[in-house]
Amino acid sequence: MKIGILTSGGDCPGLNAVIRGVVLKGTTSYDLEFVGIRDGWRGVVEGDFMPLTRHEVKGLSKIGGTILGTSRTNPYEGERGGADNIAKTLYGHKIDGIIAIGGEGTLAAADRLSKDGIKVLGVPKTIDNDLRATDYSFGFDTAVNIATDAMDRLRTTGDSHQRCMVAEVMGRHVGWIALHAGMAAGAHAICIPEVPMSIDEIAAQVTSAHDRGRAPLVVVSEGFKLKGMDEAYSDKGLDAFNRPRLGGIGDQLAPLIEQITGVETRATILGHIQRGGSPSAFDRVLATRLGLHAADAIVDGAWGQMVAMKGTDIVRVPFEEALGELNTVPRYRYDEAAALFG
Amino acid sequence: MKIGILTSGGDCPGLNAVIRGVVLKGTTSYDLEFVGIRDGWRGVVEGDFMPLTRHEVKGLSKIGGTILGTSRTNPYEGERGGADNIAKTLYGHKIDGIIAIGGEGTLAAADRLSKDGIKVLGVPKTIDNDLRATDYSFGFDTAVNIATDAMDRLRTTGDSHQRCMVAEVMGRHVGWIALHAGMAAGAHAICIPEVPMSIDEIAAQVTSAHDRGRAPLVVVSEGFKLKGMDEAYSDKGLDAFNRPRLGGIGDQLAPLIEQITGVETRATILGHIQRGGSPSAFDRVLATRLGLHAADAIVDGAWGQMVAMKGTDIVRVPFEEALGELNTVPRYRYDEAAALFG
Amino acid sequence: MKIGILTSGGDCPGLNAVIRGVVLKGTTSYDLEFVGIRDGWRGVVEGDFMPLTRHEVKGLSKIGGTILGTSRTNPYEGERGGADNIAKTLYGHKIDGIIAIGGEGTLAAADRLSKDGIKVLGVPKTIDNDLRATDYSFGFDTAVNIATDAMDRLRTTGDSHQRCMVAEVMGRHVGWIALHAGMAAGAHAICIPEVPMSIDEIAAQVTSAHDRGRAPLVVVSEGFKLKGMDEAYSDKGLDAFNRPRLGGIGDQLAPLIEQITGVETRATILGHIQRGGSPSAFDRVLATRLGLHAADAIVDGAWGQMVAMKGTDIVRVPFEEALGELNTVPRYRYDEAAALFG
Amino acid sequence: MKIGILTSGGDCPGLNAVIRGVVLKGTTSYDLEFVGIRDGWRGVVEGDFMPLTRHEVKGLSKIGGTILGTSRTNPYEGERGGADNIAKTLYGHKIDGIIAIGGEGTLAAADRLSKDGIKVLGVPKTIDNDLRATDYSFGFDTAVNIATDAMDRLRTTGDSHQRCMVAEVMGRHVGWIALHAGMAAGAHAICIPEVPMSIDEIAAQVTSAHDRGRAPLVVVSEGFKLKGMDEAYSDKGLDAFNRPRLGGIGDQLAPLIEQITGVETRATILGHIQRGGSPSAFDRVLATRLGLHAADAIVDGAWGQMVAMKGTDIVRVPFEEALGELNTVPRYRYDEAAALFG
Repeated sequence: MKIGILTSGGDCPGLNAVIRGVVLKGTTSYDLEFVGIRDGWRGVVEGDFMPLTRHEVKGLSKIGGTILGTSRTNPYEGERGGADNIAKTLYGHKIDGIIAIGGEGTLAAADRLSKDGIKVLGVPKTIDNDLRATDYSFGFDTAVNIATDAMDRLRTTGDSHQRCMVAEVMGRHVGWIALHAGMAAGAHAICIPEVPMSIDEIAAQVTSAHDRGRAPLVVVSEGFKLKGMDEAYSDKGLDAFNRPRLGGIGDQLAPLIEQITGVETRATILGHIQRGGSPSAFDRVLATRLGLHAADAIVDGAWGQMVAMKGTDIVRVPFEEALGELNTVPRYRYDEAAALFG
Repeated sequence: MKIGILTSGGDCPGLNAVIRGVVLKGTTSYDLEFVGIRDGWRGVVEGDFMPLTRHEVKGLSKIGGTILGTSRTNPYEGERGGADNIAKTLYGHKIDGIIAIGGEGTLAAADRLSKDGIKVLGVPKTIDNDLRATDYSFGFDTAVNIATDAMDRLRTTGDSHQRCMVAEVMGRHVGWIALHAGMAAGAHAICIPEVPMSIDEIAAQVTSAHDRGRAPLVVVSEGFKLKGMDEAYSDKGLDAFNRPRLGGIGDQLAPLIEQITGVETRATILGHIQRGGSPSAFDRVLATRLGLHAADAIVDGAWGQMVAMKGTDIVRVPFEEALGELNTVPRYRYDEAAALFG
Repeated sequence: MKIGILTSGGDCPGLNAVIRGVVLKGTTSYDLEFVGIRDGWRGVVEGDFMPLTRHEVKGLSKIGGTILGTSRTNPYEGERGGADNIAKTLYGHKIDGIIAIGGEGTLAAADRLSKDGIKVLGVPKTIDNDLRATDYSFGFDTAVNIATDAMDRLRTTGDSHQRCMVAEVMGRHVGWIALHAGMAAGAHAICIPEVPMSIDEIAAQVTSAHDRGRAPLVVVSEGFKLKGMDEAYSDKGLDAFNRPRLGGIGDQLAPLIEQITGVETRATILGHIQRGGSPSAFDRVLATRLGLHAADAIVDGAWGQMVAMKGTDIVRVPFEEALGELNTVPRYRYDEAAALFG
Repeated sequence: MKIGILTSGGDCPGLNAVIRGVVLKGTTSYDLEFVGIRDGWRGVVEGDFMPLTRHEVKGLSKIGGTILGTSRTNPYEGERGGADNIAKTLYGHKIDGIIAIGGEGTLAAADRLSKDGIKVLGVPKTIDNDLRATDYSFGFDTAVNIATDAMDRLRTTGDSHQRCMVAEVMGRHVGWIALHAGMAAGAHAICIPEVPMSIDEIAAQVTSAHDRGRAPLVVVSEGFKLKGMDEAYSDKGLDAFNRPRLGGIGDQLAPLIEQITGVETRATILGHIQRGGSPSAFDRVLATRLGLHAADAIVDGAWGQMVAMKGTDIVRVPFEEALGELNTVPRYRYDEAAALFG
């Protein structure tokens, strides 16, 4: 059997470890042959492939990013897109099935293609940890480690200057990175998309920490929406024109916090450094195991499913279980962390 | 209520985060009071206590080791040991119960004391991950990260000199650190206590990797026993007197591997660096959550149990579930990793 | 003799190591007594002191920030400022002299106070490495390491998405951090305050790297000024209103580069993480040695000077040598690095 | 001109950055052509070469080890060795000159070959920093950082258990790594080859630190020789047969320290992890600059010399200046550090 592998969506530490795991297991334990598909679904649609033997995956477990490249192409769009065209392309290249490593959009496309008769196996990938049906996804642990390390650094500056430091981390729709990194770094406030807060609530936590002699640390997910942001700016007499527009939510919160609490406040947007570089050991092990089990699943003909982590095991789940709703931070997990605020 | 907290056995990254979690939750959400017990059970037996308020736990989540000190004292030994004496000591200091953070020995003592009428709550601590009834224990992830980073470094030397590198990691009775770090670092052989191997089997994996042009990496748990070590030394004509005696198993394997394979081989014993220093974000979160839930358990009167990790949740389990047998690496997990060897 | 120690200006990894070095040498080799001055010159002016014995400096070499606090107060301003008032305050507290650890502003004030009769010894501190008369200043090496590590991470994202990554680093007036981190990370363009460039020159380097199949990395000092920024925005037809205003220069360059080159471009502002956290070994050694030599200098009565690094030695230089002009990147050092661009 | 590049002796972080620097500068600024010589002088003697264009050096600045391989072959030994044979081999492959990156032995061979008419340019490489005529050599800073990080970790274990920790670092003939890492990590005793000490002197420092409530940290260079080691073992009544024989000096000191001081003592031999892995930013910059200047030197015909670091500059020095005597730790540098011991 000849299997194509693709990586799709934003890059994530561990993608290469998955690829290596699949190829090593598939070629040494079974008799599978692999081709790399360039730049996610684009390579499927355009028939852009590269060799993918044992040689190409050598030493990959520790390398960040993806050797296959990635894109946000939708396989149902474009002249050569759609299940029929893709079936022809795969047939033409004698590719029997596809392993698609990606997030919600990728897996939704995989599900649809699967129902349209293409053999697809999924591997969940989300640095935000926003996919259901897997306890954790690779990349998340690395991101949390990077964010935690950055906050450890920010705190020494906060302490020396008696400042409030605001750290904006990734998390467009869910607050897992903020929750874990904030808990790990000892944050005094954690602002996540799942838990609406007003600027006065945030300021109260900052003031409380400051009153106890601490330099307050506020962690905020990029997707956090402040209740009444525009009103807050005008209420506090801040120049609306000077309100940072293209910066992150962290840039926007800082002047408000400073205005209300009187504590000098600085924001740092951690940005892309959270998703790059060498994966943590946890992510390498998780990604490698997902890859190994993906090879098993192919041999078992378990198409239309994805491999996932449950407890300490790797299991198979139908695509639907992972789709639909996002894996948001439940209220009890936020409350658990909030007990540390003060 | 006044609660004593102790840390016992070998130190472990995350101990301080547990202490901080308990104290913050216990003092801000409930009305608990805490005292620190110095050097594990020694402090209980000798009545050696220290203040433990919110002030003492400030900033502790990222600090390795334990501010309470630790020892390997058995609470049932010595003149002032035993449940009756301990009950008197605790009564004299108005201490209502104890949180014991420790490994198998500590939890076994806690179980016995508990059955003898002392109120004890357990928090599992083992860097080796050898305790049942918890998916992971804090300290393990940090150790795996440190070992993986060290092996990444060893590999560049191996590659430059075309050498076989042997890395000995912690794991007296179980091979979890070797398994995870070896998988993360791309090892060509993993030798763990659970899977007996002969020197010829190890050498065959080294030769196979070397023949494929790789610099072989062998990871070995400190508790690995080679089948027929003495015979191997004399069979291979190596001077028995020069056989390293006080070094680790890694030191002993290296000359044998070199002799059999003809590949220059060097051993490194990672040793104590695996258990020290700042915890990884994963371990900080796990340890903090165990601490938070320990405070809840006290308020619920859940004595005689320990808090533990199951999937993404923190649960309570009776001491017995964690004791008796060790959490060894199951054969299917070893075989899973072995698929990567070649 | 009783000596006050202060840290002034922005915090910097190594400040605590200097303090520890001074106090350990001064108390064990000589008979000096120390007091900590809180928050830089503010503490001098307001007479705000704290105990500073061997006990307080325990374990400080690896701790970022400053235990003394810092501020940007000018000692010649305010009701209680000025040399005469300060002399009285010091006399009242029986303080014989001051060690001032700080950057250009601090050392200029120290110089003036010194000429006005106050005994002051300087220790140079600048994360930007912008002080003359010292080969390197502590904090710089740590900042370069952090920036380099961040860029290593950014590159994996760049490579996976075939994007141009723009990394903005510290350096208000000089480009040393950009030069060193850019060279260490293999940047394809380095934009520093000392070397004016137009957007077309930068874009040409990006295009050249992209044409060779590389994901371009552009490093820019926060103090870099683009020749004709406003014109560039209007020339390229970019909406002036959407031009990022409060973000850094990196945020402003990215859309221009994308517009001209057609290569998707993302910016990351590293910000405060560059100045916090544990110092690198180089900075710990440098800072500790400066502290040790500062204690010697006091005993020698070498007031009115600062300690500095020359080659591998610590020397004393008069304040004037460090003041006046900044230590900018000389053209030949920029050209040296530019040979790597393409 | 066609130039061969070789790396010789033990591997060292930064070797690849030198190679990249030479090749990028030589091919883009000049018209040089390069070939890689495999495994040091072995490749010269045996005529074993590999392509070395811009393509091969892509992304190398952060990669540890050497892509060219290394060995300890002496170019004057063997049937095909010696200046005449080498001249013929180089002539046969149209190689005009050699860049030899290596330590004392390599540079001595380069000097001799140079005097015998072969065009050789040297680049100093020593992780121990034992070469004269260069302020620092690349690899040293990385080793010090790794050793310092390891000691930071060891200290938390020492503190938790009130133990003395002995850390053995690299340094066969000189104590630079021990001196810098010991100073950076706050060691209580530093034992280096240059400063003879008896076990009683070391024990006195351990006891002094222990009496002040510290967990003593002893750093020892692998090349440190204890005055009267055998006598010490028999004097202290320790079983000579159980004295560790193949372990390092650290393993041998620990039981003696424990016996004399009564403080539980553990040794860790850091070993090969100090020389592997990604170089620090300092080493990447130093190595890259040495490479750039090596290309310049070739174009200038500066054969028979080596490039070196002086202050912040890269200079050229004749081979002799680097040879003969080692760069040992001067007594005043040891005394400087000793002021911190107590």
